Amino acid sequence: MDKKNITFSPSGMSIKVDCGENLLQAAMEAGIHINASCGGTGACGKCRVKIISGNVDSPLSSMLPQEDYNAGYRLACLSTVRDDVEVEIPIESQVDRSVLVKEGQKFDQPYLLSPKDIFQLVQGWDVEPTVFKKYVEMEPPSKDDNVSDLTRLINAIKKQHDIKGVSTDFKLLMKMSQLLRDANWKVTVTLVQTRRGYKLINAEQGDRTHQNYSIVVDIGTTTIFGQLLDLNQDVKAACADGSCDGSKLFALAEASDYNPQISYGEDVITRIVYSQKPGGLKKLQEVVVESINNIIDELLTSSGVDVSLVSHLVIAANTTMTQLFLGMDPKYLRLAPYVPTANLIPPMRAVHLGIKLGDHVHVYIFPCVASYVGGDIVAGVLGSGMFQRPDLTLYMDIGTNGEIVVGNKDWLASDSCSAGPAFEGAGIKFGMRATRGAIEEVSINPNTYEPMILTIGRVKPIGICGSGLIDAVAQLIQVGIIDQAGKFYRDLKTERVRKGPDGYEYVLAFQKDTRLNDDIVLTEIDIENLIRTKGSIYAGCKVLLQSVGLDFKDLDRVIIAGGFGRHLNLEKAMFIGLLPEMEMDRFTFVGNGSLLGARLLSFSKELLQEAERIALMMTNLELSNYPSYMDEFVAALFLPHTDVNAFPNVMKRLPVKR
Amino acid sequence: MDKKNITFSPSGMSIKVDCGENLLQAAMEAGIHINASCGGTGACGKCRVKIISGNVDSPLSSMLPQEDYNAGYRLACLSTVRDDVEVEIPIESQVDRSVLVKEGQKFDQPYLLSPKDIFQLVQGWDVEPTVFKKYVEMEPPSKDDNVSDLTRLINAIKKQHDIKGVSTDFKLLMKMSQLLRDANWKVTVTLVQTRRGYKLINAEQGDRTHQNYSIVVDIGTTTIFGQLLDLNQDVKAACADGSCDGSKLFALAEASDYNPQISYGEDVITRIVYSQKPGGLKKLQEVVVESINNIIDELLTSSGVDVSLVSHLVIAANTTMTQLFLGMDPKYLRLAPYVPTANLIPPMRAVHLGIKLGDHVHVYIFPCVASYVGGDIVAGVLGSGMFQRPDLTLYMDIGTNGEIVVGNKDWLASDSCSAGPAFEGAGIKFGMRATRGAIEEVSINPNTYEPMILTIGRVKPIGICGSGLIDAVAQLIQVGIIDQAGKFYRDLKTERVRKGPDGYEYVLAFQKDTRLNDDIVLTEIDIENLIRTKGSIYAGCKVLLQSVGLDFKDLDRVIIAGGFGRHLNLEKAMFIGLLPEMEMDRFTFVGNGSLLGARLLSFSKELLQEAERIALMMTNLELSNYPSYMDEFVAALFLPHTDVNAFPNVMKRLPVKR
Repeated sequence: MDKKNITFSPSGMSIKVDCGENLLQAAMEAGIHINASCGGTGACGKCRVKIISGNVDSPLSSMLPQEDYNAGYRLACLSTVRDDVEVEIPIESQVDRSVLVKEGQKFDQPYLLSPKDIFQLVQGWDVEPTVFKKYVEMEPPSKDDNVSDLTRLINAIKKQHDIKGVSTDFKLLMKMSQLLRDANWKVTVTLVQTRRGYKLINAEQGDRTHQNYSIVVDIGTTTIFGQLLDLNQDVKAACADGSCDGSKLFALAEASDYNPQISYGEDVITRIVYSQKPGGLKKLQEVVVESINNIIDELLTSSGVDVSLVSHLVIAANTTMTQLFLGMDPKYLRLAPYVPTANLIPPMRAVHLGIKLGDHVHVYIFPCVASYVGGDIVAGVLGSGMFQRPDLTLYMDIGTNGEIVVGNKDWLASDSCSAGPAFEGAGIKFGMRATRGAIEEVSINPNTYEPMILTIGRVKPIGICGSGLIDAVAQLIQVGIIDQAGKFYRDLKTERVRKGPDGYEYVLAFQKDTRLNDDIVLTEIDIENLIRTKGSIYAGCKVLLQSVGLDFKDLDRVIIAGGFGRHLNLEKAMFIGLLPEMEMDRFTFVGNGSLLGARLLSFSKELLQEAERIALMMTNLELSNYPSYMDEFVAALFLPHTDVNAFPNVMKRLPVKR
Repeated sequence: MDKKNITFSPSGMSIKVDCGENLLQAAMEAGIHINASCGGTGACGKCRVKIISGNVDSPLSSMLPQEDYNAGYRLACLSTVRDDVEVEIPIESQVDRSVLVKEGQKFDQPYLLSPKDIFQLVQGWDVEPTVFKKYVEMEPPSKDDNVSDLTRLINAIKKQHDIKGVSTDFKLLMKMSQLLRDANWKVTVTLVQTRRGYKLINAEQGDRTHQNYSIVVDIGTTTIFGQLLDLNQDVKAACADGSCDGSKLFALAEASDYNPQISYGEDVITRIVYSQKPGGLKKLQEVVVESINNIIDELLTSSGVDVSLVSHLVIAANTTMTQLFLGMDPKYLRLAPYVPTANLIPPMRAVHLGIKLGDHVHVYIFPCVASYVGGDIVAGVLGSGMFQRPDLTLYMDIGTNGEIVVGNKDWLASDSCSAGPAFEGAGIKFGMRATRGAIEEVSINPNTYEPMILTIGRVKPIGICGSGLIDAVAQLIQVGIIDQAGKFYRDLKTERVRKGPDGYEYVLAFQKDTRLNDDIVLTEIDIENLIRTKGSIYAGCKVLLQSVGLDFKDLDRVIIAGGFGRHLNLEKAMFIGLLPEMEMDRFTFVGNGSLLGARLLSFSKELLQEAERIALMMTNLELSNYPSYMDEFVAALFLPHTDVNAFPNVMKRLPVKR
């Protein structure tokens, strides 16, 4: 077969492929990330690359203007390699991992809690890790006492630590007799809380109770976050006697990476579509497992903890990510009536999934509720403490989908709305994820209409992320550049507002101020997309509350989770009608709620039981069954809302209508 | 490396080996069975082979007379291959599988029960298989009812069959969503009873409740027996409405084979020794698994049942066989104070052990009690029903070891005595297992001292098996050829009694009447061995009874299990003092007790619970801790016993002492 050489710049990576290979596929194989939000269908136009030398067969596309085509741009997913080629990946497609948010960086607003305070959202729990070690000493067997080794060990655990109902892992039995003797009958056992008792999963020589770690992982559609936790018994003791300031509960190490499944589709739907191709499901599972292995490796390397000391892996993920991680066909998640295979996943050995941890390590997977309300939401609800409070909480997790939960200690109801990924950069002309070069804060001079923009990494901008978008739109309306329908006033005397190829637009940065060969603009279409996204989430909250006979005013607390960037300006989010107008002190922003819950579960076996209870007690509403959702959605397609009474303070601050 | 060719006759099998290879090892690799009861140490002298052509390096041995050496005989375990050789395997070493005992053949004595009656030993149980299938129909998911597929299935099982507490196997989840839809929501589920509820292990399209099978296997030290059972729901119905005559509970098919571990040592001790050699444990596990796979294959082929319809595998074995089957190091079973790794083995997937059954099939392994009282005894006690009767039963399983249990519904006590394998042919000059050509019945004319012998297969004899040995010794004493100490009267006028190379002996068959080049004799040394074996078992019973303050006369029933051959002549067993003198109707011979219990457990989940209870309630005595055992043993080294009052009827029938 004729082989062709492809070189990607700026990385310099090259790969040999068969003549006739698809260019996007070739990039995936080379490990080169190119944005592809439509799963390689030519529909999204995201996978633009520039052919520097050589030829590809590539049709014209409505997603690629003729002038760009003439300048050498092609959609990678539509291009067939016929020649040795050099391909330039546009800067907006390049993945920059250096600015992924780290814990402790995002607490620059009063409604943001410290890690210590975040742990206090849940009350009345003690540090009693789900997986724990106990030191036991046994009398050696004698002629008067020659019970089996297992019975001797189980009896010692029962007698010395008052732990009953212990079952045993077969793998451990295989090595146990020799180990007990080598250890001179002094061993540290590792036990894991199960649904019906405890399982004995490991035994080590001597006292190893001071070395016990767990890893918690949030598999997000876009990003995977991992943390290493120290479960050793000193932590428990310090928390019990009050000498702990809470910092012992922080992660020992953190690591994160983009979910490499992005290369196969940017959202859950395109990934489910990809999973139905031959080998697709296997590939999606392999890449996410590989990425988790890399994160584990980074956590262990940076902390100096040996892999043998990790006793547990906790995973929180939405339902699609959960099924893909397990290699479980997600087909029916996206077909009405949207049915997951299973919400409660039995515990299993990590090695069986390809995770590189000790043979004895089990994986706990947060239970899901429905096809679009997953383990990440159950984890978030757990971390929010709303399931144990008598007063009423609304929990919002805003990502590609918006998931919303309302309730208290007696009941929980949820829904999810396909908000669209505007806050994560998709569907916005210059939208991007919250990485280096993204505009994250915007302020506009009400007289000159000139903007002040701040970017992540404080470099020349290459696009705009979720928080920047909220800021920009809030400012555009507040200074009177757009009206409440999101349309530009046509008669403003500023070169910043102009008619562009996609209709009216506001120039956030002229080309000379960017790292692009283009002006960075926000178009009317972008604003329409944002309005649809925020309208969808607001309507999702409204209908959920209505379904249980409530309104926003009844809420005692709103807890917001999600990744808008490093900042979420509450006031501006209210200004555009994403959040309901309420007193600031009723809001709490917890950042990654999924990871918070996973951490709590690892520290507390009591909360493990609660997680399952939360999943079982949550009633999910399918919004497609609620005709009122469409009415509420349409009513919310206005800035801040068509119901002015719902936003009295915002209304007071709007400029007088012309 | 220089290769040499070895040809084995009469099979004609040949193998190429490196020059310098051990001949016994070469035979093992070629799959040729040669008796080797000492694990290849040159100590037992069993592995005699005749070199027909070519040369081996082989020393003289005290186990091989000079004349045999001169005739070309060598001990295979001491021989090193230096040349192409042709080797003849003596007839007594050849394995003949054609006469392994089949169910239903052995009921020619009044105290032998029919299979139907044997099942009646246990009372008050219904046919409710441990692994069972249920047909369920579900409404397809709809927008108003879109719970997860698993929840839908579990709810249907609960609603339609009132089965609660169902956990799920991860493997099943992987295929479940597609399967339910392909089946149009009408499926047959397979559930297995676990210690804490039920586990859902399989689902099939449509109604498959009429096709459900299990396989039960007894892994004996010498022989492996397997049976295929029909668990389909008609069996249950027929048994419930009384229309079943019990025959539905018989095996659909039976198969058996020698335990191929024999090649690595004839008893458990030599096998444990072998397991400590490099690769030894792995090898022992591999060969037993391979043999079980062959048996499974034979069961399925002969019955025409497809492998996919087998839902369960039940294993009953002594503690050493259990640990070797699992690949679990048995080292500490043979070192004082004789400690097994574990008595309760968690259930596991059959495929994980290398067993060729469906992915979903779990293995149930009968719990053990101690190093020398294993799952086979627990199974036997289960099958005997003694654990549920108020009256007192003694259960004896006589094999290479003798295991003895006494008790009733409230308590059980056990011990085991290393009886020695005399009843299985070992330690007896012409001893052999109960296969074709074995003398199984002996009668001696009290006037002429001429014997009448019957062999298995009614062919010329090649040796004598356990039942023949009991017959012969009982007759020798009854007609006055030997005295109560087992010594030959020196002055008898018959050519049958003579002084041979090993001392006095009785000629059972002259060379011309055999298939050997030798007379078949019973020597004083053989009789001494038999007396030690029977004395050990009798003393084991006595001490066990004494330890609980009882005597033989207190027993309501004696249940005998074991493989002496196809017959066990109770009267003659009593005559030599193997069994206590009691009314015949208090004895019951159940044949393979281990297999009986395994079958019951497969048919009744209630009895599965009982099996565990039996193992836990059984108190084991280590005879080495009982000094009185040695006294009782010595007292029993007499025919029938030094305590003449214990055998009044036998004493009456003995000839007047001269």
